Amino acid sequence: MHEIVECVPNFSTSSPEVVKTILSEIQRVKDAYVLDYTFDDYYNRLVISFIGNRQSVLEAALSAAQKAVELIDMTKHKGQHPRIGAVDVVPFIPIKNVTMQDCVEIAKKFGETLARELEIPVYLYAEAATKPERKDLDWIRKGEYEKLAEMITQPDRKPDFGPAKPHPTAGATITGARKLMAGFNVNLGTSNLKIAKKIAKALHSKKGGLTHVKAMAAYIPEKNITQIGMSITDYEKTPLYRVFELLKIEAERYNVPIISSEFCGMAPLKALIDIASYYLKIENLTSERVIEIAIQEAIEKGEAL
Amino acid sequence: MHEIVECVPNFSTSSPEVVKTILSEIQRVKDAYVLDYTFDDYYNRLVISFIGNRQSVLEAALSAAQKAVELIDMTKHKGQHPRIGAVDVVPFIPIKNVTMQDCVEIAKKFGETLARELEIPVYLYAEAATKPERKDLDWIRKGEYEKLAEMITQPDRKPDFGPAKPHPTAGATITGARKLMAGFNVNLGTSNLKIAKKIAKALHSKKGGLTHVKAMAAYIPEKNITQIGMSITDYEKTPLYRVFELLKIEAERYNVPIISSEFCGMAPLKALIDIASYYLKIENLTSERVIEIAIQEAIEKGEAL
Repeated sequence: MHEIVECVPNFSTSSPEVVKTILSEIQRVKDAYVLDYTFDDYYNRLVISFIGNRQSVLEAALSAAQKAVELIDMTKHKGQHPRIGAVDVVPFIPIKNVTMQDCVEIAKKFGETLARELEIPVYLYAEAATKPERKDLDWIRKGEYEKLAEMITQPDRKPDFGPAKPHPTAGATITGARKLMAGFNVNLGTSNLKIAKKIAKALHSKKGGLTHVKAMAAYIPEKNITQIGMSITDYEKTPLYRVFELLKIEAERYNVPIISSEFCGMAPLKALIDIASYYLKIENLTSERVIEIAIQEAIEKGEAL
Repeated sequence: MHEIVECVPNFSTSSPEVVKTILSEIQRVKDAYVLDYTFDDYYNRLVISFIGNRQSVLEAALSAAQKAVELIDMTKHKGQHPRIGAVDVVPFIPIKNVTMQDCVEIAKKFGETLARELEIPVYLYAEAATKPERKDLDWIRKGEYEKLAEMITQPDRKPDFGPAKPHPTAGATITGARKLMAGFNVNLGTSNLKIAKKIAKALHSKKGGLTHVKAMAAYIPEKNITQIGMSITDYEKTPLYRVFELLKIEAERYNVPIISSEFCGMAPLKALIDIASYYLKIENLTSERVIEIAIQEAIEKGEAL
């Protein structure tokens, strides 16, 4: 096992049939492994986590994207999560023996191929961004799919690859390279979306909240509750206990109880260590002292038992 | 990598020279890997965690024990942790592709060999115990090293292997097989050992505390504080957050603050997941959703990327 890249593509669908077909495009690629996937009606969005080496991760991402473009029609898409395309955002993440620059290269190849083969406008974001403002997903997604045809003609919004007009059914795609991040959703015991939006605003970095936190509010019809959906882009600098405790304080202000929470996608071990260390006042707990990790490292060092 | 057994021997020493020599006995065995070790003056005790296959773990445990018997003199030993010998207790723990019964067999071979080669009385405990009362480490250690010569002559205390009299400098040894457990120490902001003992008693299973918890109090001279040292023998049934929260409540009763805590030995991932899930109200978090573990499993399934 030489190198590991993670890819976490976000597709604008929650159709079980479409989800299954997209997943099988990844699963059939040699040396690509699906770790996890989630999709929800209220976001109308599919998030897949998979790993591979530099070649297999690119091949699987392209196959999945091509299938998604074929099957998803953005002209009929509704959902609470911001999006500009069928293949909305495709980040590549260095995990092992791969640099951030390697992942930037993979993202560029991915974007260039998608644009060339399917005539989809593609933006590079995060570490792959070609201009400072394009580092920010929200800036690129401004106006969402509905206003894309208008926004894309602005000179400063010319896509990095492909035509300066939306694909008729697939909109546009954003790709790039970034660090591993934590997706964390907290369910609130209120159906009042206005309150949920106030709480999300209090946490959101650009609105006076915590650095490295993006927060949005959504209504979950089947449970008649609201949810704060968050991305913590650097969970080592802004640990999850701090995010959760601040969210609790803001929710208490409106007498709103926290019902439950969940990782959206995979949970990074370091995030769990930081949570346990805070609440139990544990000193000096590191990944190497977690038995499952220590065993793995001992085996890798010793090759085989 | 076919099978993994963990061994967590406890030796009655805190001499850095002796620690180093015992460790090197394990490290020189092929296919045996030291994961972690800790030793403290106030307990005057060394705890090593190492892994190996069935053969290598037995070989390394025997080498380390033989060296410890050679170097440790119990007639001069003082320490706050209960003990009956230089090689006080040597548990074998099934981790992967090994059963509890396999570990019972390893413990029996270990005990039989130690008794035969060095004339040390050996007791089998936990899953390897030959009588119900011998499952319990505390029952076997009653009277400690100081009263061993007297206790060992009682008919119901005849050792499982070796002579019914203590080794002149090494006392007796306890070995057996058990599940993975969590060692957890909590430091209290008081030098009052009486209070610490009351708190330890409140937590201890046999004294009205929590099932699966053994708790003892110790004084730490260099910090002038006290510590509650705990073994949680089944941390899935009695999770650490429950232990910690109860300890906090009992400490509040005496206005004693909790300063810090630490795992004694390795931290099991499941214990961390349970802590994070409780405090952040996370639903459905399992080991497989921790990215480092999911990657490891994907690689094992796919062999190599």
